[in-house]
Amino acid sequence: MAPEANIQGMDLTQYIKDVPDYPKPGVIFKDITPLLGDGNAFNHTINSLAELFADRQIDIVLGIDARGFLLAAPVAYKLGKGIAIVRKPGKLPRKSIGESYDLEYGSNTLELHEDAILPGQNVLIIDDVLATGGTMEATCKMVEKLGGKIAGIGFLIELDFLQGRKKLEEKNVKAIMHY
Amino acid sequence: MAPEANIQGMDLTQYIKDVPDYPKPGVIFKDITPLLGDGNAFNHTINSLAELFADRQIDIVLGIDARGFLLAAPVAYKLGKGIAIVRKPGKLPRKSIGESYDLEYGSNTLELHEDAILPGQNVLIIDDVLATGGTMEATCKMVEKLGGKIAGIGFLIELDFLQGRKKLEEKNVKAIMHY
Repeated sequence: MAPEANIQGMDLTQYIKDVPDYPKPGVIFKDITPLLGDGNAFNHTINSLAELFADRQIDIVLGIDARGFLLAAPVAYKLGKGIAIVRKPGKLPRKSIGESYDLEYGSNTLELHEDAILPGQNVLIIDDVLATGGTMEATCKMVEKLGGKIAGIGFLIELDFLQGRKKLEEKNVKAIMHY
Repeated sequence: MAPEANIQGMDLTQYIKDVPDYPKPGVIFKDITPLLGDGNAFNHTINSLAELFADRQIDIVLGIDARGFLLAAPVAYKLGKGIAIVRKPGKLPRKSIGESYDLEYGSNTLELHEDAILPGQNVLIIDDVLATGGTMEATCKMVEKLGGKIAGIGFLIELDFLQGRKKLEEKNVKAIMHY
């Protein structure tokens, strides 16, 4: 465990529940719902995520469908900024750009309204878990395609052994907890 | 338009974009992404939603997958409470209860971890749009099945002509905007 997990003197790891064999055999899923459901833990988490990027100019926060919304939206609120949203295909009603990325089997696509980020805006991206990094890499490509600058990328949890950070080199990537 | 839309002297309706023929011909979709993306409008929205229930004891806030998370999570943060989440089938890793509801064609199911709400907890449910009310009716049933008490139900937008409120009779239902 990295010391960031004790930010503000609260051990957030006790609120993460290991669920073995989910979503498939051999995988240990990190369930964050106990953390979300505890007022103190949730409050500390949002404050800590915002604090990680206190030295950066942020114009807008970006959240990723769906669990990412639970962290990105309150961080945006705390910073007094708006939130842009990356969604699964077909969920955005207006003209959007898309980006696909590879999965173990097959691929996924994400979409973003083409007016969601304005050229030159400083974007803080917040998501729950950094695993292989495919989702975040695709998200960064879309932000940059629209002319946005990535001020930072914050995760609640980073799964170090999956080395997702390698896909995000030269980006300002931070995480509260490491496994 | 009801006067609630001008809460705190800000006309939030200007941030809602009508998208004709989405998701299908003849439907006018209320796109809330311009409101989410504007720091002032987003901030006013969250403060207004919280204010609508300032007279109630709230123990936990509940958000509905996925757009509902964008409003429920910051309201929970503002109130210093945790957030419980209702999700689409198969998205929750631990033992859950489910509830189905009818759509125009077919049906949908929603799920909630069975330990997400504790018996006797006062639950504030926040969602983006009240349309026919099926989603919210199913959500209320799950909360009550777990022994939770519904302290209030808050929407950003209520589509009055769909009369979804009828499904939520005797509940404390409030909305910021009415169409």
